Amino acid sequence: MPTSTQAETALPAGLPRRTLMAAVAGLAGLAAGPLRAQDHTPSPIPHRMPPEPDSGPRPRVAMLVYPRMILLDLVGPQTVLNIAGCDIDLVWKSRDAVSTDVGIPLVPTATFEDYDARPDVLFVPGGLMGSLDCMGDPAVLAFLRAKAATATWVTSVCTGSLVLGAAGLLQGYRATSHWGVRDLLPMLGATLVTDRVVEDRNRITGGGATAGLDFGLVLAERLKDRATAERVQLILEYAPQPPFDLGTPELAGPERLSAARARRVGMDEEALKATQAAASRLRRPGQAED
Amino acid sequence: MPTSTQAETALPAGLPRRTLMAAVAGLAGLAAGPLRAQDHTPSPIPHRMPPEPDSGPRPRVAMLVYPRMILLDLVGPQTVLNIAGCDIDLVWKSRDAVSTDVGIPLVPTATFEDYDARPDVLFVPGGLMGSLDCMGDPAVLAFLRAKAATATWVTSVCTGSLVLGAAGLLQGYRATSHWGVRDLLPMLGATLVTDRVVEDRNRITGGGATAGLDFGLVLAERLKDRATAERVQLILEYAPQPPFDLGTPELAGPERLSAARARRVGMDEEALKATQAAASRLRRPGQAED
Repeated sequence: MPTSTQAETALPAGLPRRTLMAAVAGLAGLAAGPLRAQDHTPSPIPHRMPPEPDSGPRPRVAMLVYPRMILLDLVGPQTVLNIAGCDIDLVWKSRDAVSTDVGIPLVPTATFEDYDARPDVLFVPGGLMGSLDCMGDPAVLAFLRAKAATATWVTSVCTGSLVLGAAGLLQGYRATSHWGVRDLLPMLGATLVTDRVVEDRNRITGGGATAGLDFGLVLAERLKDRATAERVQLILEYAPQPPFDLGTPELAGPERLSAARARRVGMDEEALKATQAAASRLRRPGQAED
Repeated sequence: MPTSTQAETALPAGLPRRTLMAAVAGLAGLAAGPLRAQDHTPSPIPHRMPPEPDSGPRPRVAMLVYPRMILLDLVGPQTVLNIAGCDIDLVWKSRDAVSTDVGIPLVPTATFEDYDARPDVLFVPGGLMGSLDCMGDPAVLAFLRAKAATATWVTSVCTGSLVLGAAGLLQGYRATSHWGVRDLLPMLGATLVTDRVVEDRNRITGGGATAGLDFGLVLAERLKDRATAERVQLILEYAPQPPFDLGTPELAGPERLSAARARRVGMDEEALKATQAAASRLRRPGQAED
């Protein structure tokens, strides 16, 4: 009995010995590999999950981080790619902590200046007004262009695709973004596809926030193989059961969508302005913001 | 045209003016509320999403954090509850940063000693070997018992339920956990239910890691109302599309499960030992670890 497949498994009270023995037998019966010594000493900061011995070459992933980003946009793909055996850097213009939507500050592990690697993956998470600031930031756009030139995969989740687009990296590519801003992508030369994860040649873009998990698993398969991606999905127990059937504008219907849009008016206006400015820069020869 | 409902929306190149005007019209047409001034000045650390004016009373949530936890277990529910309008504290025995699986250190916002609030929600995320350490830590268990005594909701995701169980807080309750350890729950007096989110009176427990999103939305509805939870799900674009149909042991089948188990042998053994020790303490009158 590897794990319970019944809907409920109640063990009678007062039988601790039998319970323990059943549990021991259940766990031991599944032990197909050698036992590994476990270190119970608290780890120094930062701690990472140890790499698995047979996971092959470790792809290098550069994740842009920036003030006012959405932490979940980063942590979803990061968790998946970490288990899949990638080496991940969080890169920003300085090593000062950046703010996130949930109030957890995030300390970059590298700066644009000192990150001289050629990452296999370039990734831009989304984040409210923060991504709009990045769209007009020459240092950010120059970094993305430089790393995209040699990266095997150029990727984003949520409003991160607006930043890729502002850097001119989605011109002629099919791409997606958070539903709240995705209609702006064509202004940056992209073809909007409203799928959850959109692949076009070496560009992979995901929809809003939670799409980072689906995106991460798709990318894990590309970087490693299907078996690895499947294993990560099982480890993270990713068999989602959203309580409501309305996670897209189409599913939510016009009334809920209208209510959600009403709360975004200021942000939508800022997004339009930032996209207009970026589009104008992309049309200028020489791309003046460099 | 609020958002594209076609599979693809390509705008012809060379028509920036028309594109801009269409975008303006599309966004403006949806503006049902007053425009809000947007602050583009970088925020001080930490930054949180601003509360929405009509979100009602703000439930108080105490989230346990601890070394070697899984960051996604925390950030999923935290993101949902933050948007739903909760005040969230990250509580640990000290304010020293705790390590997480992805290498991002997490700084607690309160300590067991200085957190004198009576939270509406007590939440324990999961995390590898870290949760096993918590199961045998008298200070952690005493904190959880004290706050659970008055909390409206006592909750967990992933292996967090083992910690609640070790504190004696799941005795006589239906509960779940990550599939890798959930069979141990009955040793702590709980009745295992293999659903993704399990509610029993004021206990709500979620399955492994990614179940935190489903859990968070269920909890958001309990704390606020259905409309709020629905709105959060739409904002986070939670319409998941896992690339593979195998996020549970049942779906993965015996071969994949066996392979995944083989990599967990050491951890499974430690989990059994920690659960045995906790069960033994719970059977002792006076609960000697306090």
